Amino acid sequence: MFLSKLDSLANAIKLVKDNQKFTEVEEVPISEAHKRVLAEDIMAFHDSPPFDKSSMDGYAVIAENTFGASQSAPKKFKIIDAIGAGDFSSKIVNSNEAIIIATGAPIPDGANAVLMKEYTTSDEDDLTIYSQVTPGENISPKSEDIEKGQKVLCKNTFIRYQEMGLIASAGYDTVKVFKKPRVKIIITGNELVEPTKEEIDKAKIINSNQFTTKAMVEDSGAIAEITHAGDTFGEVREAILEASLEFDVIITTGGTAISKGDVVLDALADLGEILFHGVAVRPGKPVGAGIVNGKMIFTLSGQPVASMSQFDMVVRKYLFEMQGRPFEFHLQKRVSELKVPSQLGRTDFIRAVADDECAKHVLNRGSGIIRSMVEANSYIIIDENDEGYQKDDIVDVVFFDSLLW
Amino acid sequence: MFLSKLDSLANAIKLVKDNQKFTEVEEVPISEAHKRVLAEDIMAFHDSPPFDKSSMDGYAVIAENTFGASQSAPKKFKIIDAIGAGDFSSKIVNSNEAIIIATGAPIPDGANAVLMKEYTTSDEDDLTIYSQVTPGENISPKSEDIEKGQKVLCKNTFIRYQEMGLIASAGYDTVKVFKKPRVKIIITGNELVEPTKEEIDKAKIINSNQFTTKAMVEDSGAIAEITHAGDTFGEVREAILEASLEFDVIITTGGTAISKGDVVLDALADLGEILFHGVAVRPGKPVGAGIVNGKMIFTLSGQPVASMSQFDMVVRKYLFEMQGRPFEFHLQKRVSELKVPSQLGRTDFIRAVADDECAKHVLNRGSGIIRSMVEANSYIIIDENDEGYQKDDIVDVVFFDSLLW
Repeated sequence: MFLSKLDSLANAIKLVKDNQKFTEVEEVPISEAHKRVLAEDIMAFHDSPPFDKSSMDGYAVIAENTFGASQSAPKKFKIIDAIGAGDFSSKIVNSNEAIIIATGAPIPDGANAVLMKEYTTSDEDDLTIYSQVTPGENISPKSEDIEKGQKVLCKNTFIRYQEMGLIASAGYDTVKVFKKPRVKIIITGNELVEPTKEEIDKAKIINSNQFTTKAMVEDSGAIAEITHAGDTFGEVREAILEASLEFDVIITTGGTAISKGDVVLDALADLGEILFHGVAVRPGKPVGAGIVNGKMIFTLSGQPVASMSQFDMVVRKYLFEMQGRPFEFHLQKRVSELKVPSQLGRTDFIRAVADDECAKHVLNRGSGIIRSMVEANSYIIIDENDEGYQKDDIVDVVFFDSLLW
Repeated sequence: MFLSKLDSLANAIKLVKDNQKFTEVEEVPISEAHKRVLAEDIMAFHDSPPFDKSSMDGYAVIAENTFGASQSAPKKFKIIDAIGAGDFSSKIVNSNEAIIIATGAPIPDGANAVLMKEYTTSDEDDLTIYSQVTPGENISPKSEDIEKGQKVLCKNTFIRYQEMGLIASAGYDTVKVFKKPRVKIIITGNELVEPTKEEIDKAKIINSNQFTTKAMVEDSGAIAEITHAGDTFGEVREAILEASLEFDVIITTGGTAISKGDVVLDALADLGEILFHGVAVRPGKPVGAGIVNGKMIFTLSGQPVASMSQFDMVVRKYLFEMQGRPFEFHLQKRVSELKVPSQLGRTDFIRAVADDECAKHVLNRGSGIIRSMVEANSYIIIDENDEGYQKDDIVDVVFFDSLLW
C-alpha cells in the first residue's frame, strides 16, 4: 500500500479520540489501588482525626493554668489519670489537674492543651511544670484533615501514595477503579528470532520489539500479552480476529510480505475498518489504526525506533484515557543547541538530550537505531507548521519520563 | 527521648550513606528486566542489524543501472528471484537484474540499493522502473545500531523500555540485575484500626500510614511487607529483631507510649545502634535511623505527612542506591508566588503546587493534613542556611514525580 495521502498527526489523534473506549469499573481492596484511577468520588465516612488528638507525649491541661510558669517560677499540678494511644479517659480535667497523654490519644474533657513531658518533672501524682502552653497547643483538632461527608477526591483521580492515605482515612477498605486494559501485541516478521548469544541463522534478526512494546504498554498502566504471527494474510488475520474477541486493544508490529503489500493492513481491512494508515510524521510514517469487532487496533512499524515513537504519538493517550486518566504531552520550552531541520506539513519527534535549559538532538537517528532512543531522554517536537529551527531557537521538548504512567 | 540535639539533614543523609548496603545480583529473563538496574555491562554478541537489510518492500538492484529512469523514460529490468523476510537469495544481481525483496530481508550480493515497489510495474519476470535510486538507498547497513563486541550499556543503567530493546538486540535472553530490596514495615500505634465505613470505636484512628508507606517503598523499586506491633517495648523489640533476620531494610512508623519515651527508639537502642534521632527539618523532626543485625532501620513518625516527607528525605535514596541506582533531588528553579518563612538551621520541605514557572506552597500544612500532600505536586526545599523567601524570589523545587522509581 503506497502512502501517497498521509493524514496529519492531529487528524490521526482525532480519529483515535473519536473512537476512544473506556474499561469497565472494578472494586479492589485499598491495598491494591496504588497507581490506579478512581472510578468513583471519595466521600469521607469519618472526620479525620475523629477527635481532638494529642500530637505530643505530655500532659493534658487547662492552658490558662500554665500561664506564667517558667524554670524560675514552676507551677504544681495533680496527675489524675493516664491515656495511652487507643485509650480515652472518662475523667474531666479541672483547675490545676493534668492527665498523662500519649501522642495520638484523645484530649480529655476539660483540657485544651498538651504540655510536652520534657518541660515537667513528676513524683507520683505530683507534677511540676516549668513552661506555659497556649490554648490548642500540641492538639490536632478533630476533622482538621477531613470532614465527615466531604468529597475528598474526585472520580478520575490518579491514585499516588498520598491519595492512598486519604482514601483509607476516609474509610474505604475497597475502592472502585477502572480496569487495566488488556492488550494483545501481535509481532509479525518471519525474520525474527528470540534473543540468543549463539550465532544467528542467516537472514534472521533478533526480535527486540516484543520487549520494548510490552514494556511501553505496561508503562501505560495496561497489561500486555504477546503473540507471534507469520507474515501471511491468513495467519495475521487469524491472530487479529482472535485477539479482537478476547482483548481490549490490539497492537501489531511489522507485517510486510512480498508482493502483497502490508498483510497487516490487508487483514485489518478484511476484518474491520481502517481509521488511518500513513501519517505525516517522522519517524513512523506508516503507522495505522483501525477497529475490529469494536476493538481499537494500532499497526506499528517493525523498525524499533519508529514503533516506539508511533506508540508515543497515538497509543499511549488511548491506553491512558481508556482508564480514565487524561493524557497530554507536557511540552517544555528549551534552547536548541543545534540547528533542527524539518519539513512543512510533517510533525517530527526528534530524539534529544535535554536538561533544565537546553536540548540537543541525538545525531545518529535512523529509525532502526535503538541506541538513539537509549541516548535520549526526550523528544524535540516540531509542529507540521514549522520548517525547523536554528541553533539557539526555543523548541518544544517532551521528556520521556513525563510520558510514563 | 527529648530531641534537644538535632542533626542537620545533611549529616543524617551522610550517616545513611556511610552505611549504604547493596542488594545481591540475580539473573532474570530479559522479559522481566524492565525497570530493574543492570548489574553487568552489556556487550553485543551480534551486529545489529546482522546484515545489510532492506528497509522497504521493493527491488534490490544496482543503483547505477537506475540512473536516468523517470516516468517519461522508464527502464527495463529482469526479475531473477524473490526474498521474503527471514529468507535470503543465493543469486547475484547483475546489470539490469532485480530481486524482489521484503522489508527486513538481506540485500543480495551484487545489489547496492532497493527501489520501492511503488515506482515500478511488472509483468511476470519483466520489471519496468520509473524512478532512480542512489547507492545505499533504502538499506539499513549491517551493524548501524550495534557492532559485535561493543559495550552497549554499562552496569548500573536503569532499564527503561528502550534499554529492553537494546539488551535483546545484543543477544541477552537473561540479564544480571540487582535484587529488589525486601522491606519490612512495622506499624506501631495501639490507636490504629483498619479502614472501615462503619463507626469507629472511641479513641481509635484509621491506619493510613501502612498504605502510603507501602506505596512509597514500591515507588522506590522495592518490595514491602507490613507488620503491626503493639506499643510496648517487648512487642516492638520482637518485631524489629525478627525483621532484621529476614529483611534487607526495616521501616517503623509511630511508636509512642506513656512514660517510656519512644519505645521504637528504646528497642532499637537495645538491639543495635542508633545512627541519628531527631533532625533539624520540618516536617518530620523526630525521624531516626539505626542498624540492627547489619540491617538499616528507619524510624518514621506516626503523623502521615511527617512520615511521607521523612521517607523522601532519607529512605528513598537508600532504597534506590541499594539497587545500584543513583538518587539525587533534581532541584528546579521556580518563582515563589508567596512569601515562604523558614528558620536558620532547619531544612524545610514545603508542600507546593508548581508549574513550569512558578511555585506556590500549600497553605494548610500541619503534619497530619494528608490533603496537603494530595493537593501538592512538589516540595519547595529551603536549605538550613536560608531564612525563607519573599514573594517573587527564586526557590528550589523538587517535583514528586521526579522522586519515583
